[in-house]
Amino acid sequence: MNIRGNAYEELMGFQRKTEALGQVSGRLGWDQETTMPRGAAEQRAEEMAAMESVLHARRTDPRIEGWLEEAQPSDPVGQAQLRHIRRSFLRNTKIPSRLAEELAALTSRAQGIWAEARAHNDVAAFLPALKQVITLRREEAACLAQGGDLYDALIDDYEPGATAASLGAMFDGMRPRLVELRGTVLEAEHQPDTLQGHFDSASQMRLARELATAFGYDWSRGRLDLAVHPFSSGSGSDARITTRVVESDPFNCFYSTIHEVGHACYELGINPDYALTPLGAGVSMGVHESQSRIYENQLGRSRAFTGWLMGRMRSQFSDFNAKDADAFYGTVNKVRAGYIRTDADEVQYNLHIMLRFDLERALISGDLAVEDLEAAWNDRFRADFGFPVDKPSNGVLQDVHWAIGLFGYFPTYSLGNLYAGCLHQAMRTALPELDGQLADGDTSAATGWLRENVQRHGGLYEPREVVARACGFAPHEGPLLDYLETKFRGIYNL
Amino acid sequence: MNIRGNAYEELMGFQRKTEALGQVSGRLGWDQETTMPRGAAEQRAEEMAAMESVLHARRTDPRIEGWLEEAQPSDPVGQAQLRHIRRSFLRNTKIPSRLAEELAALTSRAQGIWAEARAHNDVAAFLPALKQVITLRREEAACLAQGGDLYDALIDDYEPGATAASLGAMFDGMRPRLVELRGTVLEAEHQPDTLQGHFDSASQMRLARELATAFGYDWSRGRLDLAVHPFSSGSGSDARITTRVVESDPFNCFYSTIHEVGHACYELGINPDYALTPLGAGVSMGVHESQSRIYENQLGRSRAFTGWLMGRMRSQFSDFNAKDADAFYGTVNKVRAGYIRTDADEVQYNLHIMLRFDLERALISGDLAVEDLEAAWNDRFRADFGFPVDKPSNGVLQDVHWAIGLFGYFPTYSLGNLYAGCLHQAMRTALPELDGQLADGDTSAATGWLRENVQRHGGLYEPREVVARACGFAPHEGPLLDYLETKFRGIYNL
Repeated sequence: MNIRGNAYEELMGFQRKTEALGQVSGRLGWDQETTMPRGAAEQRAEEMAAMESVLHARRTDPRIEGWLEEAQPSDPVGQAQLRHIRRSFLRNTKIPSRLAEELAALTSRAQGIWAEARAHNDVAAFLPALKQVITLRREEAACLAQGGDLYDALIDDYEPGATAASLGAMFDGMRPRLVELRGTVLEAEHQPDTLQGHFDSASQMRLARELATAFGYDWSRGRLDLAVHPFSSGSGSDARITTRVVESDPFNCFYSTIHEVGHACYELGINPDYALTPLGAGVSMGVHESQSRIYENQLGRSRAFTGWLMGRMRSQFSDFNAKDADAFYGTVNKVRAGYIRTDADEVQYNLHIMLRFDLERALISGDLAVEDLEAAWNDRFRADFGFPVDKPSNGVLQDVHWAIGLFGYFPTYSLGNLYAGCLHQAMRTALPELDGQLADGDTSAATGWLRENVQRHGGLYEPREVVARACGFAPHEGPLLDYLETKFRGIYNL
Repeated sequence: MNIRGNAYEELMGFQRKTEALGQVSGRLGWDQETTMPRGAAEQRAEEMAAMESVLHARRTDPRIEGWLEEAQPSDPVGQAQLRHIRRSFLRNTKIPSRLAEELAALTSRAQGIWAEARAHNDVAAFLPALKQVITLRREEAACLAQGGDLYDALIDDYEPGATAASLGAMFDGMRPRLVELRGTVLEAEHQPDTLQGHFDSASQMRLARELATAFGYDWSRGRLDLAVHPFSSGSGSDARITTRVVESDPFNCFYSTIHEVGHACYELGINPDYALTPLGAGVSMGVHESQSRIYENQLGRSRAFTGWLMGRMRSQFSDFNAKDADAFYGTVNKVRAGYIRTDADEVQYNLHIMLRFDLERALISGDLAVEDLEAAWNDRFRADFGFPVDKPSNGVLQDVHWAIGLFGYFPTYSLGNLYAGCLHQAMRTALPELDGQLADGDTSAATGWLRENVQRHGGLYEPREVVARACGFAPHEGPLLDYLETKFRGIYNL
């Protein structure tokens, strides 16, 4: 006889409050990057550390072990909930509370230091903080890896099931065809025009809101603000997005917005029964990025949708160079030399990731000293992209990730691209009329297909499994590479 | 021999984390009223309840009792810290955790219901929620009062040391002279002009920022946003304010801003050594309100400062009716019939408070049923103000306070006025050149005097004591009434 028949309900009740507190912590992070007064950074670090210590205590509460032993849900949803709780409990019980608190306080502070260093192109001002972050993350990884690979232990937090080896193999499979395509495209005789014009902030933000609406963003459960580095934040009924504005380059704002809408729509598309449970959030960073990428690239940068976008831009901006929809499509997708990962086109994006992947593996293993990071970045950049980095804000200081301790996170961006390629192939088969809809600015069939086949499941399936179920085949790099070659050979008349 | 010589340090370390979590909870409240998407209200209620339960568990942690017994600080600061912690511990251990959580969730929901009801002038839609709030607050008061007066138990949370009887006596002392002054002023032959013109939102907000700066608001530790009901929020290095804009009436925006700046400057002016401790926040609602009121009224609505304001308004707005600085001073301070407490002039404001004080005492005692509240409000309003309420948003639905459970809070506004009157008298003695400075828009001597004599002390002294120390006499209603009679008899040529 089961004397604790309600172990599952007790566990889920406990977990629900933990999830709610996790949302609070996420909201603090949003506040820090959008609205917080600058002078509040030190106090905020203490607030974040206090929240982290509360969350850590709950995530390692000894009662969880007993509940996990006794809970016997018979349905797949309950079993999936337990799988997530068990994984989280095992990870968290390996990390000392003191370390979790230190990391929260440190990364909160380091983010402010990074922002200042980036603004002043002052790498030296950032390195001491980065060094501390790496020290603590290595310490954390050692607790988790228990003799195994440190970097694998860090990846596992973002992409359960992935390893440095599997990701390295993925990059090996992608690199030759991408390098070849990039070379061909950059040397092609026909080169699309660069966008010329001035695009005022207010009109960009107005059109960004229109784009978010066109991609089905639910404004009653979200909002759009400005941030240095665009991000999305929150689950359940509060999934917010940010973007940025560069007056010479409206595509930066527009495609950052569509990208973050993809993330937010994933969260908002999850079965509402899963809200404030472990299934109520995107299942991994890779699957998350597949949604943002397919919204941004396969849909948002398609010939059909860019035709509609050109019309909307003409209604907002008095003068820019687009002689027709084909030329505008080329302009949107133009491949060009550039420093910034988040500005990169679809052909070169994954090369930016490979650079970061190799450097951060070396930082974590200890093969690369923090003092040598800038030089290593600059050398590798020149080797991969063919020209030198001009200033740190275009180089090693461009991303916030390392400042906030995100090591093992970058490769999930490329994994997301790979998944997006697979999902796009399956979606095109399922929706033969899609281009006609996108040409009218109507993404509802596409986003509906993604919601039905991917988003609504939340954490129900393992990352690769949810993509495989949606596609009907095991994910691999072929569809992405085929799509890129067809698309860019078309644009460049090859 | 004391075997736990570090009891005080342990207690203060524990308390510091609690204070940090309290700041997080306050930030969630700010977010809810300024930036939160509307559809997130239900989830937010769960998040607030989860935070409340964490805070309640910490505030009633049984270790506190032991620390309080053993801690022996010899300095007045340490003794004041213990006094606050002991008071909070005793209050909180009397309230069941379940009740604290229910109240947090309910008031979060009730606030949304109130906002909707107010927008649609639908009292009936609000009453069920209000009834639940009152039921839970009465239940809470019963736990605290232990046989004593329920309303006194609620007041004690906002104004330690005050009682319904002492506040009632204060109102009795103020009412006759205020009623007489109001009658005289409204019947005076000379009546100041009403402000005429259109004042666009963007320019109002620009000037509101300028006013906040003029009153010494530290933008590196705060920010200004819009909210339905202006408020200030946060302590330490993050004290934010909100305001509202009515395009026909810029004084609403300007004086709400100055008022909230007064609150925020109190928090930001506290000795930084007290940050994230019980001494690191304003000592009571009454003393808090004394700061907001003296900024808003005795300084901001003075003849000297309004002269400067008129010049700033002329630079922002093309056309409004102010033939000279004396006329403008009359316009700013014009006494007129009105429904809204937060718009009320200095003469009538306390009459609004008396109405709420009597009604909420009756709601808590059970002498007034929620179903009869609207009629009771409307009857009393007509009796006190001489004309009927036209719609609930101008009557019983105008304030958020009851929706969020603030019973016993309204009278602290009048107490703040009384304290402001005393502080103003003392400040004028100390700063004989003040009017010359205010005429240049320079409030630094005045705000510096308040920071030095009131604000920096935070929670070090009891509420009445900090005012008495600043003034050199025990606070009483005389200075306020003398000030009002002199000011308004001057404006109305009486």
